[in-house]
Amino acid sequence: MNISFIGAGNVAWHLAQALDNAEHIVQQVYSRRLQSAVQLADKLYKAEATQSLDFSESKAIVFFIAVPDQEVATLVSQLKLPPHAILVHTSGTLPIEVLAAFKNRGVFYPLQTFSKTKAVYIPQVPFCIEASNPETEEVLVSLAQNVSRTVYLVNSAERKVLHLAAVFACNFTNHLLAIAYQITLQENLEFALLEPLIRETINKALSGENPATVQTGPAVRNDTGTMQSHLDYLTHSPEQMEIYKLMSQNIQKVSREL
Amino acid sequence: MNISFIGAGNVAWHLAQALDNAEHIVQQVYSRRLQSAVQLADKLYKAEATQSLDFSESKAIVFFIAVPDQEVATLVSQLKLPPHAILVHTSGTLPIEVLAAFKNRGVFYPLQTFSKTKAVYIPQVPFCIEASNPETEEVLVSLAQNVSRTVYLVNSAERKVLHLAAVFACNFTNHLLAIAYQITLQENLEFALLEPLIRETINKALSGENPATVQTGPAVRNDTGTMQSHLDYLTHSPEQMEIYKLMSQNIQKVSREL
Repeated sequence: MNISFIGAGNVAWHLAQALDNAEHIVQQVYSRRLQSAVQLADKLYKAEATQSLDFSESKAIVFFIAVPDQEVATLVSQLKLPPHAILVHTSGTLPIEVLAAFKNRGVFYPLQTFSKTKAVYIPQVPFCIEASNPETEEVLVSLAQNVSRTVYLVNSAERKVLHLAAVFACNFTNHLLAIAYQITLQENLEFALLEPLIRETINKALSGENPATVQTGPAVRNDTGTMQSHLDYLTHSPEQMEIYKLMSQNIQKVSREL
Repeated sequence: MNISFIGAGNVAWHLAQALDNAEHIVQQVYSRRLQSAVQLADKLYKAEATQSLDFSESKAIVFFIAVPDQEVATLVSQLKLPPHAILVHTSGTLPIEVLAAFKNRGVFYPLQTFSKTKAVYIPQVPFCIEASNPETEEVLVSLAQNVSRTVYLVNSAERKVLHLAAVFACNFTNHLLAIAYQITLQENLEFALLEPLIRETINKALSGENPATVQTGPAVRNDTGTMQSHLDYLTHSPEQMEIYKLMSQNIQKVSREL
């Protein structure tokens, strides 16, 4: 199938190459910065780099918008597509209706974090698909299944909730690991010492049960002596202290309600 | 080397078997509940289960106390060991001085979470060793190296900090995953959808750099629209809302200071 990418950032970088490898033909790669478009186009079978948003003569059928959320609306208002084209965005948070100017519209959201320099194993990335009509849905699901083993139909409201869950499970988790990193660093201890324990924690939490049922640590066993000694240590960092208190309180609350 | 275990819980269960497999001979397994001691002793080459704390006739040289923290002090006060015996505890939080009644004392702390039903690959578990004198230290380091590839000398103050870091990196992380689980569950979404994203987050955070440098999400890019829509969704759960606000604020603060 002929497709085009509008945007050449991290998501476009991985998605365009995955679809290209699956025998789809990327016709155009648009970027505001031509150099970015060229870089990605060079990785593809026969794509042309462009700085124009007029695709009315393009042979592509599906157009992927993969740019930062706040740029999507402006970009859509300037876009010229061939008749019957399908326009999709790849955002976890934007509703499908941001593309309302186009009849055949959809969402093609890979639930993964991408950076250009790091390979991602796309077949294991879950794709969340939404479409404005059954024909469009069929095309998008089929495209997603060409590159991934897990494709879900997820509407805009569900996608928003999934994204919120990911903020807790990934963004906030990364911040806790950053705090642990800082705590070990300031005592000249190796953060890597914690790696087996962190990995085992994640394995247990992802084993299928509610992670609350495998909660461990001083809060869940109400070990007030240990908690007080931790808080004493944290007096120099009021923010970390506050996080410690709030998380411990909430762990105890959830444990009581189990 | 002849050794004995006081306690037959999760830590004793894995540690006794690992040392037994490394050709050390467990002489006695003590538990208040004889049945627990028998269960573990049955797994070992020639260990005897006992309910007595009088080990004055034991052939063992190193005695491992592996019981809950709050039981250690009482147990130590009742313990009779042979002269020159080495007494160690396996706790992440107790200071070595809780064993002050014995001249040759130490800490033998495996930095991992154990449950009896789940196999743990001991060679990858970091062991934190502390000892009251160089001869004892040598014995304990050698024992730890017989079962693990990563053995560190960690004093009581450092061990306490390591434990605090582990509370952030593991206990609190598990709680965030429990919140994400609950959020997906209440919308009939599969928590497993988040698994690739969670694993990639952990891989990036453990890649060696400060995890703060790879922080992603609405807070770090100051995407106030997304954050507000998340907070609106969380109005029914004031605790989750408070965690969302506090973590987001702190992510922004740390990001400004990088």
